[in-house]
Amino acid sequence: MNIVLLSGGSGKRLWPLSNEIRSKQFIKIFKTKATTSGDAESYESMVQRVYRQIKAVDADADVTIATSKSQVSAIHNQVGLDVGISVEPCRRDTFPAIALATAYLHDVKGIDKDEAVVVCPVDPYVDHSYFECIKELYEAAINNTENLVLMGIEPTYPSEKYGYIKPIQNAEVCGWGFTEKPTEEKAKEYIAAGALWNGGVFAYKLRYVLEKSKELLGTCSYAELFSNYANLKKISFDYAVVEQETSIAVLRYSGTWKDIGTWNTLTEAMEDEVIGRGTLGQRTDNVHIVNELNLPILAMGLKDVVIAASPDGILVSSEDTADKIKPYVDAIDQQIMFAEKSWGSYQVIDVEKDSMTIKVTLNPGHRMNYHSHEKRDEIWNVIRGTGKTVVDGMEQSVKAGDVITMSAGCKHTVIAESELQLIEVQLGTDISVADKKKYELD
Amino acid sequence: MNIVLLSGGSGKRLWPLSNEIRSKQFIKIFKTKATTSGDAESYESMVQRVYRQIKAVDADADVTIATSKSQVSAIHNQVGLDVGISVEPCRRDTFPAIALATAYLHDVKGIDKDEAVVVCPVDPYVDHSYFECIKELYEAAINNTENLVLMGIEPTYPSEKYGYIKPIQNAEVCGWGFTEKPTEEKAKEYIAAGALWNGGVFAYKLRYVLEKSKELLGTCSYAELFSNYANLKKISFDYAVVEQETSIAVLRYSGTWKDIGTWNTLTEAMEDEVIGRGTLGQRTDNVHIVNELNLPILAMGLKDVVIAASPDGILVSSEDTADKIKPYVDAIDQQIMFAEKSWGSYQVIDVEKDSMTIKVTLNPGHRMNYHSHEKRDEIWNVIRGTGKTVVDGMEQSVKAGDVITMSAGCKHTVIAESELQLIEVQLGTDISVADKKKYELD
Repeated sequence: MNIVLLSGGSGKRLWPLSNEIRSKQFIKIFKTKATTSGDAESYESMVQRVYRQIKAVDADADVTIATSKSQVSAIHNQVGLDVGISVEPCRRDTFPAIALATAYLHDVKGIDKDEAVVVCPVDPYVDHSYFECIKELYEAAINNTENLVLMGIEPTYPSEKYGYIKPIQNAEVCGWGFTEKPTEEKAKEYIAAGALWNGGVFAYKLRYVLEKSKELLGTCSYAELFSNYANLKKISFDYAVVEQETSIAVLRYSGTWKDIGTWNTLTEAMEDEVIGRGTLGQRTDNVHIVNELNLPILAMGLKDVVIAASPDGILVSSEDTADKIKPYVDAIDQQIMFAEKSWGSYQVIDVEKDSMTIKVTLNPGHRMNYHSHEKRDEIWNVIRGTGKTVVDGMEQSVKAGDVITMSAGCKHTVIAESELQLIEVQLGTDISVADKKKYELD
Repeated sequence: MNIVLLSGGSGKRLWPLSNEIRSKQFIKIFKTKATTSGDAESYESMVQRVYRQIKAVDADADVTIATSKSQVSAIHNQVGLDVGISVEPCRRDTFPAIALATAYLHDVKGIDKDEAVVVCPVDPYVDHSYFECIKELYEAAINNTENLVLMGIEPTYPSEKYGYIKPIQNAEVCGWGFTEKPTEEKAKEYIAAGALWNGGVFAYKLRYVLEKSKELLGTCSYAELFSNYANLKKISFDYAVVEQETSIAVLRYSGTWKDIGTWNTLTEAMEDEVIGRGTLGQRTDNVHIVNELNLPILAMGLKDVVIAASPDGILVSSEDTADKIKPYVDAIDQQIMFAEKSWGSYQVIDVEKDSMTIKVTLNPGHRMNYHSHEKRDEIWNVIRGTGKTVVDGMEQSVKAGDVITMSAGCKHTVIAESELQLIEVQLGTDISVADKKKYELD
């Protein structure tokens, strides 16, 4: 089975655990095994959970993630190098993203036009049976005559948030209609008439979307779509394709399906009330703590509250206001304090007027880019592991306790043998992430 | 006027802002001047507030603080070197503490036995007029014939928490009786009969307590009390002296008087809802944030909640459970992450298995002890200021950007010229604050 996971934009709705460069699908929040402690290793992210669920249904599934460049490192760190990635040069809507991913499957991965693919979001919180249904969609796309096979989710209440797929049967047509976010009253009416929630899952033969791409975007060549991506029209796949299509089959899914986009929906999916260091004290009821800081959190006398802490900040919110945080988070002037990189991760641990101190962790065998800074000196204090530094072409083996100093302008990198940790002290009057020049390492 | 402030034990009731080494009276939480931002410089601690209030009433007041060794640095940092300190070698109750402080005034400061002193707690949250009343107590102790002059606070409600001073007038006696923590019903009865709250303020001539000391502790010599302090009986001044005394005058105080011992009473005294980095978002009502971390805090949809954050941890508590935190805080296994020292302060910024990284700030003209460690190497990365290091007797001028490495066993210190900041990286398999040997610096 071929499957494309749409890994959407970053966002602040799960601040402080999501930010401009870390999307919610990478937060490790779902329990993977029995544990008594809040051991971080016992949790997986949405991406990891969905990837594992796919592989459980079809170990040979060929998974491609359609996403932006900023997520590539996190994806490789979390699910390994076996996954294909269709990198979107910038953010458009879902039609360009799906067209690009489909062209990637055909042109780059060499998949035949008559092969099928299922496209689904990377972040549904679902049962195993969801992916059984995905497999049925895939098979239907190959074997059925319809151009598109959709997943219809059996509604559990008349939601005003979702899109509905309604069966239409009258003198002229017999097919499906689509409505976004109806009123509760309308939703009840639809459900009574047999409507389903639109799960945003689409299965089709490659040929179908390649043709749509040619028709609507002028080309179905991966290279052309990629190079011209910024100029493509922002349009959703639902609007551009699904709602225009009359040859549609719908398969039903009736298991758990949650859209985990805000703190209140996310905490519902948490098996443990506390992840990380946290204590629920006297008179706490439905309080969730997600703590990525190395500081204890104590909650006392609270009800229906989520407490989330990361190097970016601390959120304390009642469950029913947690979906309103965005404007307040937008107003917070905070540099990014933590990032996953292709080579490991870094965390800002101290900020002063003319200095910044960072903890850098390099995965074994990995290295930073060979680079220099114009406006700052740097000092590396190796605190763990072994590796090699290259400074202006000079190689040196390093281990815990070694110190390397680098003046502004000097080219440098570090290569980890074992897991390597550094305390990096940056000194300068104008420290900025933009001050970085990259070089090839001979 | 001579005044002794009793600066009581450290405690965890205002955790995470108070801990074993930082007592509540040093938390900067009271606004001193108009400000639009949460600028830390605009706040003063209880000690600073009380000291300023005393000096406003009597600029020449001779202030002595009776406290433990662990508070000496914080006191000097916060109120300067002008204040006398009577150091208690260990914690006993208030009678030994007051006897020692009185002996200190006489033997060390040379104050005459016929001079008077007022003893009062360091942490009442009171009006200016409280110290006017203190001055009246002082004058009454000099001029009146009574052995003891007490402050009686006019009750505003029948509290079950306080001690009461009751006028007694019958056939045999005409004087004052004392009761601790009555029931509400009894309290109402007392108040109707003219009782006052006992503010724990005592004025007397030195001679009086020196004699009591000799009588009850066997000596009134400062040197003897000091060297034998650990063996003195734990007994309160109220129980040992006040309740036995018949020659007592009581002066009334009717202004603001708050006992700020827990988060719920402390937030009542906060003028600003937010101190430090914090945002009150949608639907917050009576929410207080005290944030000593360099991280933003966002509160949403909360009522009657206090959020307090420091390098030691994060508390989120409803106002009415905030006085119950102690057992939960006791259960938290956390090393001390921040401390004020006589020479400045330090903060732990990273902890790994075999390393610890600390940010050290030295005040201008100050230095650490000359010391060594058996089991760890250290690296100093100077990030601000200028000064001089001494490593195994070798002096070196240092400035921002300089790196000094010190192997285990090597003696070292740093002397600040201007304010000096270091990132200190400690490396070793057994890092402990106990691993420290001090030396004289020639």
